[in-house]
Amino acid sequence: MSLTTTRHAAYRALEPHARERQGLSLVNKLLVLFIILAAAFAILETEPEMVGGRHDLFRTAELIFGAIFTVEYVVRLWIVPDNPEYAGYRFPRLRYAVSFPAIIDFLAIVPTFVTLGASGGGSLLLRFFRVLRILRLAKLGRMSSAWHDLSLAVSERRHELLLTVSIAGIVLLVASTLMYWAEAGAQPDKFGSIPRAMWWCIVTLTTVGYGDVYPLTLLGKSLAGLVAIAGIGLIAMPTGILAAAFSDVVQRRRAEATEAAMKKPKKNDGLTIGEVNS
Amino acid sequence: MSLTTTRHAAYRALEPHARERQGLSLVNKLLVLFIILAAAFAILETEPEMVGGRHDLFRTAELIFGAIFTVEYVVRLWIVPDNPEYAGYRFPRLRYAVSFPAIIDFLAIVPTFVTLGASGGGSLLLRFFRVLRILRLAKLGRMSSAWHDLSLAVSERRHELLLTVSIAGIVLLVASTLMYWAEAGAQPDKFGSIPRAMWWCIVTLTTVGYGDVYPLTLLGKSLAGLVAIAGIGLIAMPTGILAAAFSDVVQRRRAEATEAAMKKPKKNDGLTIGEVNS
Amino acid sequence: MSLTTTRHAAYRALEPHARERQGLSLVNKLLVLFIILAAAFAILETEPEMVGGRHDLFRTAELIFGAIFTVEYVVRLWIVPDNPEYAGYRFPRLRYAVSFPAIIDFLAIVPTFVTLGASGGGSLLLRFFRVLRILRLAKLGRMSSAWHDLSLAVSERRHELLLTVSIAGIVLLVASTLMYWAEAGAQPDKFGSIPRAMWWCIVTLTTVGYGDVYPLTLLGKSLAGLVAIAGIGLIAMPTGILAAAFSDVVQRRRAEATEAAMKKPKKNDGLTIGEVNS
Amino acid sequence: MSLTTTRHAAYRALEPHARERQGLSLVNKLLVLFIILAAAFAILETEPEMVGGRHDLFRTAELIFGAIFTVEYVVRLWIVPDNPEYAGYRFPRLRYAVSFPAIIDFLAIVPTFVTLGASGGGSLLLRFFRVLRILRLAKLGRMSSAWHDLSLAVSERRHELLLTVSIAGIVLLVASTLMYWAEAGAQPDKFGSIPRAMWWCIVTLTTVGYGDVYPLTLLGKSLAGLVAIAGIGLIAMPTGILAAAFSDVVQRRRAEATEAAMKKPKKNDGLTIGEVNS
Repeated sequence: MSLTTTRHAAYRALEPHARERQGLSLVNKLLVLFIILAAAFAILETEPEMVGGRHDLFRTAELIFGAIFTVEYVVRLWIVPDNPEYAGYRFPRLRYAVSFPAIIDFLAIVPTFVTLGASGGGSLLLRFFRVLRILRLAKLGRMSSAWHDLSLAVSERRHELLLTVSIAGIVLLVASTLMYWAEAGAQPDKFGSIPRAMWWCIVTLTTVGYGDVYPLTLLGKSLAGLVAIAGIGLIAMPTGILAAAFSDVVQRRRAEATEAAMKKPKKNDGLTIGEVNS
Repeated sequence: MSLTTTRHAAYRALEPHARERQGLSLVNKLLVLFIILAAAFAILETEPEMVGGRHDLFRTAELIFGAIFTVEYVVRLWIVPDNPEYAGYRFPRLRYAVSFPAIIDFLAIVPTFVTLGASGGGSLLLRFFRVLRILRLAKLGRMSSAWHDLSLAVSERRHELLLTVSIAGIVLLVASTLMYWAEAGAQPDKFGSIPRAMWWCIVTLTTVGYGDVYPLTLLGKSLAGLVAIAGIGLIAMPTGILAAAFSDVVQRRRAEATEAAMKKPKKNDGLTIGEVNS
Repeated sequence: MSLTTTRHAAYRALEPHARERQGLSLVNKLLVLFIILAAAFAILETEPEMVGGRHDLFRTAELIFGAIFTVEYVVRLWIVPDNPEYAGYRFPRLRYAVSFPAIIDFLAIVPTFVTLGASGGGSLLLRFFRVLRILRLAKLGRMSSAWHDLSLAVSERRHELLLTVSIAGIVLLVASTLMYWAEAGAQPDKFGSIPRAMWWCIVTLTTVGYGDVYPLTLLGKSLAGLVAIAGIGLIAMPTGILAAAFSDVVQRRRAEATEAAMKKPKKNDGLTIGEVNS
Repeated sequence: MSLTTTRHAAYRALEPHARERQGLSLVNKLLVLFIILAAAFAILETEPEMVGGRHDLFRTAELIFGAIFTVEYVVRLWIVPDNPEYAGYRFPRLRYAVSFPAIIDFLAIVPTFVTLGASGGGSLLLRFFRVLRILRLAKLGRMSSAWHDLSLAVSERRHELLLTVSIAGIVLLVASTLMYWAEAGAQPDKFGSIPRAMWWCIVTLTTVGYGDVYPLTLLGKSLAGLVAIAGIGLIAMPTGILAAAFSDVVQRRRAEATEAAMKKPKKNDGLTIGEVNS
């Protein structure tokens, strides 16, 4: 078997779009598992009680995951010429290397080499590389159509979204300004400037209400009451529109998939995350 | 009257599906009452002020409920051969005994025998058996179509649910990771690891906001504001989809019931919890 | 002009259904004003800073409102024979006196005579009569179709409402039970019994989250997170269904009103609260 | 080129309705930028850490923005005779000067002259003029159809909105009254009067739940639980109706715009805020 044949087999095993049968290939299923495991290990490693004396276990696991993802990165680079998407380019591998999924794959292998030297708690920068290890979950995006659905939903309703986001932003600014006006005298540390009052405003209008900041004066309480009653619905509009649009896209895509499946079965070009385990 | 006739009468009195007339039989209505009473007693017994010196009252009540449910369990086992569902099996009673409702019925009589020996507050294990007494409410499942409707709603929208649950999970993980990154230095006990930051994240994204954990740094507050505004709608998507699906199922089933009732009245194979008292 | 003619004029001025023209009569508009004013005075009177030294003002106002509502009550009793609704009864006035709106009218004049003797803060019973003065707002029910719309919305969706209320109740019970199980050992004063855990459960599942009660143990936090994510949507289902049903009823009634107005104008048998000022 | 021609050119550059091409003119785009910049500077100026020693920078910026908006105000007054809207009036400029957008433009230049004399923190009155500088954002209203859409949504559903606002108001009053009744004895400073109990009520029914006020007695907790479960949906009805109505208006307007664009392109009389940057 020639090297080209091997490369083509690797291409068909790794690229969900190149597969004839429905669902993910075994290689991709294993990769999904490794991505989730790597994120789980990275999450647990931040908790000292979980790590205990088992530093070696976590270090070894990280080394293994780093090695797997490095091999995956190299193989994906190697199989690029088989991908018809990159057929027209002069340097298809370079072109692929600067594509969004390839950059994510590259960022996923960086922290292995950086964090291995360090151990224990750590600075903001070190934590940044630990965080990057969890964001490896973004690698799942290639396997699922969820990200595509979400961006389709955003683009279909971008006018309503921009309009409602603008309104939400202005509601936020006006409410912060009013509360700054009313409460800056009584609580200069919490409402002493509009940016500070915005923290109150976000916490209130999202109805989270931690209780670390709340108005004390009668004027402040009256304004806060009006702001809360009038503003909560307006702040929730963009997310409401997005949720409805996303639901529409998913239902439409499913209706199309059902229709297509009735015409010619065993052909599918994507997979929802939920289907990974089926 | 032969034993077989008695058994068949018991079968028709106990099995909602076997009944010709609409609604629950008198025996089942009484059982619903006993289940609710048993749960109420079990709830009140946990409150020392309610119990006062009346330990004997609660002990006697528990004994009576335990006896009733034991008799019910035995009778249900006895009438199995009358149930056409179990006609084809070699050991129909054994087959029934390992079915989901039968296991619930069995678990409902276990705590009577376990908790009677103990009294007062108690350990995590003892509390577990008290808790089991309240979960007797699961016995109501047989009487109502609500559980069936809910599982139908889940299965009809399982793709959307899995997709949105996955998105919610990833939002949760990414938000926890970002907040761990920003706040671990300032509040190591509350944001010192990602699992700890997840508690903040759940409390914030569900908009509960107890106020036991909140960001203190400027970076943390900015990230928390973005997370709250962007994440709340995404976290609420699965429950929104489930609520809509459940509402659909209930309305559809009601429309079918109305149609069926207009064709041939006095025939129904289930009962909503709400109809118990009618 | 005979007494009967006067009585009939009074009947047509007081009973919204008896009026030929659209909207409320002048007498009823004045009554709406007095009801709102009386409630406003009753509300302000509870605030010592508002009352200041002006006890006489509030006492006089209460006397005037009490007198007006007493006269209204007597006149409404007097005009009953003109109301065709009560035509078939032997003692129409007695029949009217035990009707729901008449009892509300009676309860609205009781507190005037009870609270005039007392002053200042006061006991739970005295506060009860003050509270009754604010509940005079229920007198507005006769003027508005809102109450009718709301009860129609409830009755149309009573099956879904009962079902979802039952589910919400069971979610509440099960969640309280689980949290009692997990947290009773760590916080006996807050989770030491299931009724106590229910306070946490209501505060959490409605997403209010005061922060007076929250789990401390790892098991409690994990369960609380699951309960919050899964339960919030289920608890919100009944109110969601009610809000949708109410919106349906209002829109349907408005469509009917528009249609009726196009056929024969200037005929209406009700008024929304919102139209009072128009 | 005569003065009249210049004036007409200025009119077409400043008035969005007078423009033939779609989108905002360059002059209006610059004005949008200046409005946003002016608001941003005004917001940052309230934060002492942002200002630092750069008082001169902020003072100069404010002078420049004030000058720009003063020139804009004068030019808009000058070009009024070109606007066919004001053609029929005897004193078109006076008529324009008392119109809503002109008053907003006037209020936007007032604070420049008032606040320049003062510096640092300041009194409630001084903060009022700072606040006015942020409310300059209202000047954006002329550029966008969002305000028009929102007022259209309000006017189309004004019956439902008034009805649900009335219901929300009565729910608020009754809930405050009940909690005053139950808790005034235990917490006189927080529930000692109905206006004080209303703060609790707003914080609870909007589900913000800061945790500064919550019931302590058993009666208060029971009532609070009922109020929270029953009231949250009712309080959210007006904003829910408004959000749905606004979404309807935006979608309808977009459908009309798409239809109009297919008939005769490059003609549009408004711009959503979202489109400013495109």
